[in-house]
Amino acid sequence: MSTIERVGVSLEKELLGQFDGLIEKLGYTNRSEAIRDIIRERLSQDHLKNPQSRAVAAVLLVYDHHSTQLADKLLKLQHDCPLQVVATTHVHLDHHNCLEVIIMRGKVREIETMAGKMTSLRGVKLGRLNIVGTDV
Amino acid sequence: MSTIERVGVSLEKELLGQFDGLIEKLGYTNRSEAIRDIIRERLSQDHLKNPQSRAVAAVLLVYDHHSTQLADKLLKLQHDCPLQVVATTHVHLDHHNCLEVIIMRGKVREIETMAGKMTSLRGVKLGRLNIVGTDV
Amino acid sequence: MSTIERVGVSLEKELLGQFDGLIEKLGYTNRSEAIRDIIRERLSQDHLKNPQSRAVAAVLLVYDHHSTQLADKLLKLQHDCPLQVVATTHVHLDHHNCLEVIIMRGKVREIETMAGKMTSLRGVKLGRLNIVGTDV
Amino acid sequence: MSTIERVGVSLEKELLGQFDGLIEKLGYTNRSEAIRDIIRERLSQDHLKNPQSRAVAAVLLVYDHHSTQLADKLLKLQHDCPLQVVATTHVHLDHHNCLEVIIMRGKVREIETMAGKMTSLRGVKLGRLNIVGTDV
Repeated sequence: MSTIERVGVSLEKELLGQFDGLIEKLGYTNRSEAIRDIIRERLSQDHLKNPQSRAVAAVLLVYDHHSTQLADKLLKLQHDCPLQVVATTHVHLDHHNCLEVIIMRGKVREIETMAGKMTSLRGVKLGRLNIVGTDV
Repeated sequence: MSTIERVGVSLEKELLGQFDGLIEKLGYTNRSEAIRDIIRERLSQDHLKNPQSRAVAAVLLVYDHHSTQLADKLLKLQHDCPLQVVATTHVHLDHHNCLEVIIMRGKVREIETMAGKMTSLRGVKLGRLNIVGTDV
Repeated sequence: MSTIERVGVSLEKELLGQFDGLIEKLGYTNRSEAIRDIIRERLSQDHLKNPQSRAVAAVLLVYDHHSTQLADKLLKLQHDCPLQVVATTHVHLDHHNCLEVIIMRGKVREIETMAGKMTSLRGVKLGRLNIVGTDV
Repeated sequence: MSTIERVGVSLEKELLGQFDGLIEKLGYTNRSEAIRDIIRERLSQDHLKNPQSRAVAAVLLVYDHHSTQLADKLLKLQHDCPLQVVATTHVHLDHHNCLEVIIMRGKVREIETMAGKMTSLRGVKLGRLNIVGTDV
């Protein structure tokens, strides 16, 4: 556990009141915890701007599992980069559609390239990428 | 399988050239497929603007697994909404940090509320929410 | 000027060091100022989620000024909502393209609708909307 | 005016129906125009990922015009980069707050740096950056 420091922050009373209202709505019971979280979020945004940063990501793919050989192509893509794909979760959405969530680790640029390749496969209807920095 | 229609689109030659360059870079082998994908993405954005829309989502949480009772609190939150949580994947990032990816189904507003509750738990360092529409 | 309050925040030493590094890079000379800014940004995001919130916005439109009657149509749209459009700035980008930045005040939903109408006009190539809350 | 090409796109009937519904809501009277717009938007996103790309941008600043010397500092920042700042529009929001919209041209990275410097000035409460590519 890292050493804890205590710093003082000056805020207009009105701003503080609005912030306390927001964090109560979000479920925070502690103001420091909320401020730490928005600081980490801001740091993470900055960290991920660098395509060379290390990161972990989830790619969400919605696809029609009747698409010919799509599952094979997805598996092949994942196995061509065995160091990066940590885990895959597959969910049946309805008769046609699946959601596949693929957790990957690597550099931001590599993750974006791999997510692009997966999304562009025929049969993949929607692809979303969510990256978080690992140096948090 | 739904009926396929064929529509004609007029584009400036230069715009078409730029688009063909982009989709080749992204890995598409077929222009129709790429146009379908950006149409679906645009529809999905619009669909998710409505807090009552049905959606599926992945919440990514980075947390310190030494945090007292955090795992218990996360499990309790998930079990208090048993219909929504489809699957959870847990990944060890390093000695301190875990990534948990929680797949949920429900209305956009409910998903956002649940993601907020999870993110605001003490010990959760980063929370990200990625929602996709299910009517794709 | 509103009353100033001083609150204490506990942070891990390492997190504080990373934050100090970021805000120095961004040009801040004062940590409280940086924390106030990210708090305001977070509040603003929440405020703008409500389509009924009051806001001020800039719409950026890139268009070909040779497009028949486009300038007239844009002007007409703006005059059909005289209370909302505060100011318009027009910039020549190159022989064909102009940038028009339209500053509007009103409710989030009204602003979004108006921005959509402008962007969908024939000849408008790109439209971007940037909304900020006015209760800051 | 660039040459117009006509390409055929295959879409599921249901997807086409949903898209026609969306673009009618957005105010489009022509399907090609709507598809051109989402193609340009997608190209623009890709273009702006490269920090060396040429772009035009609007920075929105909300600030308290009672802040000591803030207007001077903002002007000085703008004059230190005379080639980039195209135009500035100033709007009074209420007794305390102003909105300033600053239109700049340059490379993506330079624009981001300048926007960061402006936002971090003491007295600037909110800063937003909206970049569009100029090769549209």
